[in-house]
Amino acid sequence: MLPEEVLKKAAAEMLDQGGSGQSVMEMSHRSKEFESIIYGAEALLRELMGIPDNYKVLFLQGGASSQFAMVPLNLMTTGKADYVLTGQWSTNAQKEAARYGDAHVVASSKDKTFSYIPKLDPATFTPDADYFHICMNNTIYGTVYHEFPQTGKVPLVADISSCALSSPLDVSKFALIYAGAQKNMAPAGLTVVIIREDMLGHARDITPTMFNYQTHADNGSMFNTPPCYTIYIHKLVLEWLKNDIGGLDNMLKINQKKAGILYDFLDSSKMFRGTVVTEDRSLMNVPFVTGNDDLDSKFVKVATASGFVNLKGHRSVGGMRASIYNAMPVEGVEKLVAFMEKFEKDN
Amino acid sequence: MLPEEVLKKAAAEMLDQGGSGQSVMEMSHRSKEFESIIYGAEALLRELMGIPDNYKVLFLQGGASSQFAMVPLNLMTTGKADYVLTGQWSTNAQKEAARYGDAHVVASSKDKTFSYIPKLDPATFTPDADYFHICMNNTIYGTVYHEFPQTGKVPLVADISSCALSSPLDVSKFALIYAGAQKNMAPAGLTVVIIREDMLGHARDITPTMFNYQTHADNGSMFNTPPCYTIYIHKLVLEWLKNDIGGLDNMLKINQKKAGILYDFLDSSKMFRGTVVTEDRSLMNVPFVTGNDDLDSKFVKVATASGFVNLKGHRSVGGMRASIYNAMPVEGVEKLVAFMEKFEKDN
Repeated sequence: MLPEEVLKKAAAEMLDQGGSGQSVMEMSHRSKEFESIIYGAEALLRELMGIPDNYKVLFLQGGASSQFAMVPLNLMTTGKADYVLTGQWSTNAQKEAARYGDAHVVASSKDKTFSYIPKLDPATFTPDADYFHICMNNTIYGTVYHEFPQTGKVPLVADISSCALSSPLDVSKFALIYAGAQKNMAPAGLTVVIIREDMLGHARDITPTMFNYQTHADNGSMFNTPPCYTIYIHKLVLEWLKNDIGGLDNMLKINQKKAGILYDFLDSSKMFRGTVVTEDRSLMNVPFVTGNDDLDSKFVKVATASGFVNLKGHRSVGGMRASIYNAMPVEGVEKLVAFMEKFEKDN
Repeated sequence: MLPEEVLKKAAAEMLDQGGSGQSVMEMSHRSKEFESIIYGAEALLRELMGIPDNYKVLFLQGGASSQFAMVPLNLMTTGKADYVLTGQWSTNAQKEAARYGDAHVVASSKDKTFSYIPKLDPATFTPDADYFHICMNNTIYGTVYHEFPQTGKVPLVADISSCALSSPLDVSKFALIYAGAQKNMAPAGLTVVIIREDMLGHARDITPTMFNYQTHADNGSMFNTPPCYTIYIHKLVLEWLKNDIGGLDNMLKINQKKAGILYDFLDSSKMFRGTVVTEDRSLMNVPFVTGNDDLDSKFVKVATASGFVNLKGHRSVGGMRASIYNAMPVEGVEKLVAFMEKFEKDN
């Protein structure tokens, strides 16, 4: 979901962006017009997230799945890394890293269908690991890290694909964070990487040039043609976050309000219940079940017919999942809860 | 440049695609709505290009620059390949392949600033090469292959980024063709790969999962979230090619007409001249000079002020370059030539 303001502006500017006489889709990425878009997006992202000066911001392609290989190819200099498994994506990331070295599984919550974030004991961490990898928000399972692992001098790497820009984040705690942009940042086709400068320049010899962070850091994300239009929409989203929402502190308050409405209902309902332990609940993804597969199916069907789309849960969890990303207004959640209340009464 | 019809339709559908109530930017890539877009785009591309059934069509990210590594990582099974250098991109492709094996340079036109396509002698080809790589149309230098190398049983691989869909192409002559889509196919952020099925399944162990063609062939280009909106625009472009233009035979006629107007003028002008040997001239990119750097600069300046943008030639060639991709109407070329005639008279 994208803010309606963003889509309206994009539609209005489709044939003529900023009086240039061109669509952003037609601009040369070397033009002054596009430079003001990509540099403007970076400046806004730095401002909103408070990204320190010793971090590079890279606008890449290929999704978080490409990062699963780029991270080990660039950072696994001695061949050892720690991974915490909290869902499908962190598991895929660990599997890919294991192709390039020892990707040690520190902890996993697979035993309970990833319904919690494992308690981590630093004594079990690899003390000289090249990095320590987590997936901060787990889209399918609806969990989020509210505290980060204490990794000492081991660089902390986080996939923040499904919670980027949903709340303030202390970037300085991380050596590298990455996000497929299609949840809160932009449409699919853009991957944002924020990397501390000392992590650059260590890629293995086998690393494809396009998979070397240094390539993109050295060229301001324009080693080759970037996904210009997606970066333009990203800039519109960042402008919306700054000007319409008032920054990430306010975004967090709104997200807490939205999630609160839904969790409060789930905690009081006699039909529906959330699947995640209370203390690890995500503000972005709220999986829930009735405990009865037939009733779940009926709910999804009736909800879809009433205009509540994409509510079917992932096959590994079953039931339902409400994704309430930044662009979902409070009223959207209120309407969903009203619908759930009525469904509960009727069934 | 994109057809105005495409941009208008995209603007009109920005907030509600096909009555779905959603923007394509917001659709789940697993939704029926998006499946009809991506499968529809593939079907149209297969129809327009006459792609045989034993070829897979892959919609990827990362640009042609990523293909420079993907090709050797997937196809260089015995470590030997042949490359012809006809410009910056084929040179970059060869350099990247040389990181993974013996990327033999069969011929090069660097001696004359890539202003021609080298005559190729099959006796100089590596007889047991894993593949033979060419860049069909050379954007910066304005050359194109009008005939293809006779590589016998050695698989022929072509980068067709800047001439895709500009004319009919016998796909069956190639083992693999790839194109960064941002010239004739779609906005930047989509890479189209057409690969014969027997080329799949040979990736090296070190190949990142996302760089393995098999990954994407096995998952209908949806191993991870594809660049949905860019694929949607690609489909609109293909619909325009089919319905408004009438297919690639007609597109070729229009492109020949456009290029003919410009080359005829260059051949008759006393001020301007094309930089490419006549028999290798591109229909897409037309570099030209006055022979006087100051006059070149003046022309670019005056032209830009008159609304003819992006005419400055690449720094390695100097002068000017007119890119007359599919979406450029005949009238656009006529106006440019009228402007050049007036400039010649005035100067």
